[in-house]
Amino acid sequence: MSGFSEKLDAASVASILARVARRRPRVHCLTNTVAQNVTANMLLAVGAVPSMASHPDEVEPVAAGAGAILINLGTLSLEGERAIPKLVGVARQRRIPLVLDPVFVELSPLRLRLVGDVLALFDVLVRGNATEMAVLEPLFALRRDIVRVTTGAVDRIETEDRALSVAHGHELMSKVTGLGCASSALVAACRAVEPDSVIAAAAALTAYGIAGEIAAERAAGPGSFAVALIDALATLDPQTLQARMAGARNHGDRT
Amino acid sequence: MSGFSEKLDAASVASILARVARRRPRVHCLTNTVAQNVTANMLLAVGAVPSMASHPDEVEPVAAGAGAILINLGTLSLEGERAIPKLVGVARQRRIPLVLDPVFVELSPLRLRLVGDVLALFDVLVRGNATEMAVLEPLFALRRDIVRVTTGAVDRIETEDRALSVAHGHELMSKVTGLGCASSALVAACRAVEPDSVIAAAAALTAYGIAGEIAAERAAGPGSFAVALIDALATLDPQTLQARMAGARNHGDRT
Amino acid sequence: MSGFSEKLDAASVASILARVARRRPRVHCLTNTVAQNVTANMLLAVGAVPSMASHPDEVEPVAAGAGAILINLGTLSLEGERAIPKLVGVARQRRIPLVLDPVFVELSPLRLRLVGDVLALFDVLVRGNATEMAVLEPLFALRRDIVRVTTGAVDRIETEDRALSVAHGHELMSKVTGLGCASSALVAACRAVEPDSVIAAAAALTAYGIAGEIAAERAAGPGSFAVALIDALATLDPQTLQARMAGARNHGDRT
Repeated sequence: MSGFSEKLDAASVASILARVARRRPRVHCLTNTVAQNVTANMLLAVGAVPSMASHPDEVEPVAAGAGAILINLGTLSLEGERAIPKLVGVARQRRIPLVLDPVFVELSPLRLRLVGDVLALFDVLVRGNATEMAVLEPLFALRRDIVRVTTGAVDRIETEDRALSVAHGHELMSKVTGLGCASSALVAACRAVEPDSVIAAAAALTAYGIAGEIAAERAAGPGSFAVALIDALATLDPQTLQARMAGARNHGDRT
Repeated sequence: MSGFSEKLDAASVASILARVARRRPRVHCLTNTVAQNVTANMLLAVGAVPSMASHPDEVEPVAAGAGAILINLGTLSLEGERAIPKLVGVARQRRIPLVLDPVFVELSPLRLRLVGDVLALFDVLVRGNATEMAVLEPLFALRRDIVRVTTGAVDRIETEDRALSVAHGHELMSKVTGLGCASSALVAACRAVEPDSVIAAAAALTAYGIAGEIAAERAAGPGSFAVALIDALATLDPQTLQARMAGARNHGDRT
Repeated sequence: MSGFSEKLDAASVASILARVARRRPRVHCLTNTVAQNVTANMLLAVGAVPSMASHPDEVEPVAAGAGAILINLGTLSLEGERAIPKLVGVARQRRIPLVLDPVFVELSPLRLRLVGDVLALFDVLVRGNATEMAVLEPLFALRRDIVRVTTGAVDRIETEDRALSVAHGHELMSKVTGLGCASSALVAACRAVEPDSVIAAAAALTAYGIAGEIAAERAAGPGSFAVALIDALATLDPQTLQARMAGARNHGDRT
């Protein structure tokens, strides 16, 4: 953990969401086939535009005009493996922000090797759960520019000298497949319109977590929760952000 | 735009939907992995049967018995690229109607080239949004047999000498991923039971648009809208078609 | 049909579901891209953990720690074809239970050949619909160790000398894509914690069928049914199992 801990206010989150809705950044997602649909729907819910080409012969032109790129290692295919260095190349040439989601990296030596390829790029955001991030700790130790986003009951966004916590969300978020993957795409969407990666990631996870809290109040189980989460994210307004973030601060012990 | 503008009545739409429900045509879909699930569910909602094989060694026997074939260029894979000429061959040999959905063709030279391969077939329906269809305009100019289906706030179905507009639907349809792709599959399902491609496409888009209007009245956002759309399509009856189509005619300025 | 017909009681079903929820077995699924999302959500609903790697270079290490393996032949890819013998090898070496779902085997000679490869393994569960299982009858005749699970209005679980019927469920289950595929994954999850394959399969299908009955009471069509099914499965309790299974016995003519 870093020494300097920041706060994010509701106005900043609202401002970033408003920029996403207005500019409609395209987020190019090389992501797993389990999570593609919910990822695309979450991006559309905040006003971003998903594209998901993965064919080695088209991934470069399709990604070239994107506002951000997401590489998620779930259900990796041989074609996806070939597409990764091409996407890294496009991101480097065009200075497109890139988010990496190292799904189940603890189970697959292949994925661990591919993480290394992506981290050859400067200034990547990595979003994973505690198990995934722990496996990558040795790589992170060598690369101080990486923004590390560890999601869980409390999300942590960390760089070498900055840290921010997000204490929103609901445990039902871990009972629906693809919601972690979709959070990485939301981080990418916010990063497309906000140059400060730490603030962008925190804004995305705050909005997503608050939408999760609202959805949980309406849900009868993980099926209706997933539906309500999309509704809540699409209709999130600054007043709700303000009220929910104030509530969380009052329970400051959670952070 | 063509000179001759047709009207479609509710009885024709109801008749086509009844034929789909009774004959249960199988629609073989080579479609993108983002939209596969919602596409299959929309086909099942109208009583059609989806199949989605794409392996080059099985796509021909699986597609051979289908009532219609859909080729959608989203998330194209190397295998899908190999499957396309095989599907075109099956469609030609067995005279199976074929619908092409040129997703994001404006972003990918590879997809543009593949469109050319599919259009080697006679009498194809092409369903896309305005951007996609504009990119294909030069190809359409050379091929007068193509049925062009451009969806948006108002859908247009056009051939060299015929035109039909459908003014149903709701803006939430653009906030859920895969709904455009699924509309192409519904066009294919209706074409499987209705030899007049223009009428088949118009019937599919009318039913889908009306289901969208009903769903929007029940929805709290794009998540619940997607669920309600499937429900509404599965329970659409002739009386509702009649009432909604009469309503749209009364607002004739929309067409 | 075999001579010896067993009964399953609610306490056994509840016990197996409780073991799944407590042990959280990982079910490695090589399954079709249409059904991946709903399959993962059904596994999460009962407390199991889905993994879905299919890349030939990682499928072995990822599957090695799984509690059960599912091979589903829908949307088979060339990579999936290469992954199948590797998964069979892992299952054999580590004695991991394996469930095969022969989707649309009646349409594809390739799939029929691959079934043969999987059945080289001893003690496989095969879950299919009546059409698929009929095509495989000649293979089953040669292999008496196979547990055959045929789902439909009444599900049948059969071995050479045992038989069990499950008469739960609702016809809406055939109107949502991937629900048959997901049932195979639930069978695998229960088999991971219950060594008796017949009892494991019957418990999975009983729980799923009862969740389907509950969901149908809450649904306005196949869209809301799919959502309610996940909710019902995730919140199924022993009392509900007891009451519904007693009700079905009272309607014993259905079995």
